[in-house]
Amino acid sequence: MPRGLNSAVKLVQLLVSGSVRNGGTAVDATAGNGNDTLFLAGLVGPEGLVYAFDIQEKALQATRSALEKAGMSGRVVLVRAGHEEMEKIVRGPVDAVIFNLGYLPGGEHSVTTRPGTTVRALQAALNLLRPGGRVGVVVYTGHPGGREECDAVEKMASSLDGNLYNVIRINFINRSGAAPVVVVIEKAGEPR
Amino acid sequence: MPRGLNSAVKLVQLLVSGSVRNGGTAVDATAGNGNDTLFLAGLVGPEGLVYAFDIQEKALQATRSALEKAGMSGRVVLVRAGHEEMEKIVRGPVDAVIFNLGYLPGGEHSVTTRPGTTVRALQAALNLLRPGGRVGVVVYTGHPGGREECDAVEKMASSLDGNLYNVIRINFINRSGAAPVVVVIEKAGEPR
Repeated sequence: MPRGLNSAVKLVQLLVSGSVRNGGTAVDATAGNGNDTLFLAGLVGPEGLVYAFDIQEKALQATRSALEKAGMSGRVVLVRAGHEEMEKIVRGPVDAVIFNLGYLPGGEHSVTTRPGTTVRALQAALNLLRPGGRVGVVVYTGHPGGREECDAVEKMASSLDGNLYNVIRINFINRSGAAPVVVVIEKAGEPR
Repeated sequence: MPRGLNSAVKLVQLLVSGSVRNGGTAVDATAGNGNDTLFLAGLVGPEGLVYAFDIQEKALQATRSALEKAGMSGRVVLVRAGHEEMEKIVRGPVDAVIFNLGYLPGGEHSVTTRPGTTVRALQAALNLLRPGGRVGVVVYTGHPGGREECDAVEKMASSLDGNLYNVIRINFINRSGAAPVVVVIEKAGEPR
């Protein structure tokens, strides 16, 4: 179980992990360097399936390499496409979807996720989710366009029907204004 | 492990549980009906110790009864005192402290926690915490004085030095303005 309240990435992993079942299906909407893909692949286990999306070949290569090292390539489908395309590709329902927005760490900073496609991708993720499933999002506010993307994600998430979705937002309230923001959305109605 | 993102109480339990060790010490600052006391007693195990504070005898009776039913009385010290007194009584360092503020469910609504003593009790809890330990707080905003108490807790927590404490605040952003607020504070520097 991931620990430490100083990391937005670990908080999302902790909060999403409760909805991922052994043998289940999950989506890493932003493969990046493969961190969340690896985490989800560990949770679904050898019988499960993870889809990992990225528009950059460099990101998918890094993810593939990390999966091979961990011996988990067999349970992951790498998809070179924008995450707003996920409904065309993923066979749902899925247990969880993780978004780690912004730019690829160590990559080209001008290539970032954008508010319009991000909100469409979030909606696609909610459509794919099983009851009781969760979507976890880390949004960064320090790069150009980051604040706008954060506002768009919060606006979309806070407008969701409270009877259908449980929505929480996490702020790091003793850090500067450029701290990341975490949003987790749970589809209601799981038979537990 | 507690589940469900719709419950502030369960979220605090989930986030605090990562810092509680088998055989460790924890504090329920607001015993109430014993819900968090029972949860913490389960985490520390038979070799651990939980202190449970409440100023109302009715709350301590309910907590005692719940502990007896669960066979966990032997690891819990019930203290009839305000939680701002905890430093005089608790032998630290402690792994975790949980505050569930407001009034006793099913009790007298005029008997509530108050901003001044709550902030002093929070400071006492931080003083008792071991490195890596966590304080979890649920604040309610719907009752008279609740909003002021929430503001006081947030102000205190957001002013903590970011090098010494990791502080997160959780809001239920698709509910009404009277939704509870969760604050979790982690003392930095745990040797993991």
